[in-house]
Amino acid sequence: MQHRQVRRHGVLPRTERRGDLTRGHAIGAGLDQKAEGVEPRRLGEGGEGRDGAGLFHESRNIDEMAARQACRLRGGAARAIAQSMNFSFALNATDGAARTGVISTPRGEIRTPAFMPVGTAATVKAMRPESVRATGADILLGNTYHLMLRPSAERIDRLGGLHKFMNWDRPILTDSGGFQVMSLASLRKLTEKGVTFKSHIDGSKHEITPERSMEIQKLLGSDIVMTFDECPALPADRTRIAESMRLSMRWAQRSRDAFGDRPGHALFGIQQGGLERDLREESAEALRVVGFDGYAVGGLAVGEGQEAMFGCLDYAPAQLPEDKPRYLMGVGKPDDIVGAVKRGIDMMDCVLPSRSGRTGQAWTRRGQVNLRNARHADDPRPLDETCTCPACANYSRAYLHHVVRSQEMIAGMLLTWHNLHYYQELMGGMRDAIAAQDFADFETRFHAMRAEGDIDRL
Amino acid sequence: MQHRQVRRHGVLPRTERRGDLTRGHAIGAGLDQKAEGVEPRRLGEGGEGRDGAGLFHESRNIDEMAARQACRLRGGAARAIAQSMNFSFALNATDGAARTGVISTPRGEIRTPAFMPVGTAATVKAMRPESVRATGADILLGNTYHLMLRPSAERIDRLGGLHKFMNWDRPILTDSGGFQVMSLASLRKLTEKGVTFKSHIDGSKHEITPERSMEIQKLLGSDIVMTFDECPALPADRTRIAESMRLSMRWAQRSRDAFGDRPGHALFGIQQGGLERDLREESAEALRVVGFDGYAVGGLAVGEGQEAMFGCLDYAPAQLPEDKPRYLMGVGKPDDIVGAVKRGIDMMDCVLPSRSGRTGQAWTRRGQVNLRNARHADDPRPLDETCTCPACANYSRAYLHHVVRSQEMIAGMLLTWHNLHYYQELMGGMRDAIAAQDFADFETRFHAMRAEGDIDRL
Repeated sequence: MQHRQVRRHGVLPRTERRGDLTRGHAIGAGLDQKAEGVEPRRLGEGGEGRDGAGLFHESRNIDEMAARQACRLRGGAARAIAQSMNFSFALNATDGAARTGVISTPRGEIRTPAFMPVGTAATVKAMRPESVRATGADILLGNTYHLMLRPSAERIDRLGGLHKFMNWDRPILTDSGGFQVMSLASLRKLTEKGVTFKSHIDGSKHEITPERSMEIQKLLGSDIVMTFDECPALPADRTRIAESMRLSMRWAQRSRDAFGDRPGHALFGIQQGGLERDLREESAEALRVVGFDGYAVGGLAVGEGQEAMFGCLDYAPAQLPEDKPRYLMGVGKPDDIVGAVKRGIDMMDCVLPSRSGRTGQAWTRRGQVNLRNARHADDPRPLDETCTCPACANYSRAYLHHVVRSQEMIAGMLLTWHNLHYYQELMGGMRDAIAAQDFADFETRFHAMRAEGDIDRL
Repeated sequence: MQHRQVRRHGVLPRTERRGDLTRGHAIGAGLDQKAEGVEPRRLGEGGEGRDGAGLFHESRNIDEMAARQACRLRGGAARAIAQSMNFSFALNATDGAARTGVISTPRGEIRTPAFMPVGTAATVKAMRPESVRATGADILLGNTYHLMLRPSAERIDRLGGLHKFMNWDRPILTDSGGFQVMSLASLRKLTEKGVTFKSHIDGSKHEITPERSMEIQKLLGSDIVMTFDECPALPADRTRIAESMRLSMRWAQRSRDAFGDRPGHALFGIQQGGLERDLREESAEALRVVGFDGYAVGGLAVGEGQEAMFGCLDYAPAQLPEDKPRYLMGVGKPDDIVGAVKRGIDMMDCVLPSRSGRTGQAWTRRGQVNLRNARHADDPRPLDETCTCPACANYSRAYLHHVVRSQEMIAGMLLTWHNLHYYQELMGGMRDAIAAQDFADFETRFHAMRAEGDIDRL
């Protein structure tokens, strides 16, 4: 059912990706060379070449995997495999500021631009992981804050790590816990050292510092670890934003120090600075000095609105190293995503497709559809006749309306599947368009179809 | 993952089943010939040989299916297909009172003894129909009362029938609505004509008569239709039970008259009479006079307890025609099911496996396991190491505990799957044991394993 998505992977031939790897960093045609004095780094730096004395099972597993595969190969092939056991990023093509490429990790490749479904509490709500994969997802996001509280990072480590625990063997990115401490926990106390808070689940007291965040994410077995940061809600005054950003930059250095050498695992720094261009540049420079395997644009999608966000994205991604993945945290709606990719973002995550699916909301090429609406009650047509997800392939709008109204679990199951499928199709469409130097047309078609709106009622 | 279940189907070779069909009715070795003066009927009577002027789409579909298949065949093969377009029952083996066989319908075969998962509101809660099928289910049950209220039988008919609506193309049995009017609706008024009541959903006023129940079940496109009956809760006094039973028998005749001739569709009569053997016999005789395609033992599992139920099942199934399927409504726990099959029951349904799955309760060979219990929090072992369902194959008890405690939807999804899988494995095990004349040993092993209880805590 998901063959389209899988075939789309073929846009990035394996040989081409390997070629990019051996070239060090590959910049596709059409990407402006930025004049920021950034010395191009060898791809994979930060993950490669370090002493891999991994203390944790996942490092051992990776060594075993590498050894096992290398046994069957010789010479160059064995070296290529050993290299793929590390974290690296190769750009395949660019179109304006938009980029497409592949992040290689020991747990599999991540096609970029990538949308990461959110698996907060070791599950993408209403989905089995096999189904998440069937939508075309290459990577999931897990929430450090939720997992440290329940079932706890130490317990997940004892049980073999988050991948095994939740039955997802592909890459996992974990956030640092900082954002959700601020949005969910009570009695927060912020100091230079870190943050103390009470659990929203049982009121128990906890502390997260940059060092503890690194420890938790290591215990979880995360493939892509995020530095611990503080993220103020917008609007906020410039002084507050600057102070917060500088604290986050000091925490970024502490995160880097605490992360240590973990071959095959990546640490991403998070740019802050609100909507202040010079603070964003100061933050980017601070992160570049430390050096990370990827860079996130943090502190957006926190109430500033799409126009302001795009205004920031017009310059923020370009402030970050172009040879590393750029991740826009917590975004967003489909049109947010298209606008972010257009501006040079490679990775995104958002609860929207899964959360919407549990409230009867579907996202399609034609915009948002509220299946609770009575207009669907007798409608025998699929949600989207061109969609191959199980909700569209097997059910009428009338059925989806019925199960939404009846509060049946299958409503959330089917609509979450559809929404995640739609998001992944959107990402695949953008990857194809960038590879074909056709992104502007893609964007025009995307907006035109949404402007048409949902199909007419019967 | 479900191969075991599928292989088990091989116990009933296709040629053997065809042989049974052509022999009229086949009684396996070991079945006592009952001395109740019942003239053996030709298998399929009630569904076969009638004038198939179907008014509804499902009849037309069946004619089309038969014609299409017959086109590709000649002579005897074409006749065999035409015959399979009707409803019939063939016993393959018996062991004591226990029986195994196959119900053939135009929508597929039902291996008996059969457990029917309950799909109340056009969904087996927390399951996609593909997953229900993967557990080994041959047939689902739909609830007339729920479906007539929401989304309504007329709407489902307009949308192409219940099978298409809910994406389940195999057989569906619908109850008559009588039992649930009594248990769920308010302001019920019972007369000779039928019952009026207010919807538990929106307070709207409705009437069900035997004629209306037949109409609703026809609109739904049900393959096995149940007569409209009244079912008193137990304990009740003998006078009340007798009056109720006789009303149900008059309704059974009216149901038969209203059902009409619908080739490929079956009408089952429902025996009543509480725990009174003579009333049960009077009811069975009344049903035999009318003539049905199958017979249900109704009015049990309504509060009488297992001992009393088994006491009734020691005689009730034998009062019903032996060449037709016998269906025990609303049963039950695994040990209820084994005891009922032992006493000659061929079909059962119950919400227990799906409802338990949504409350963290699992049913295994070793009895019931409450996954909310803290003893599972650190347990890396599967729920049942011998089970091949996704919950057991891919997850630890610790994970199941975590998602139950976190009220994640995947908890209900996985545990419902496991429970339905276990129930279907139990049915398959009984079918094999009966075919092998090994039912007594099967029952001994079943109880011995449960007596051992769940695996020791770590």
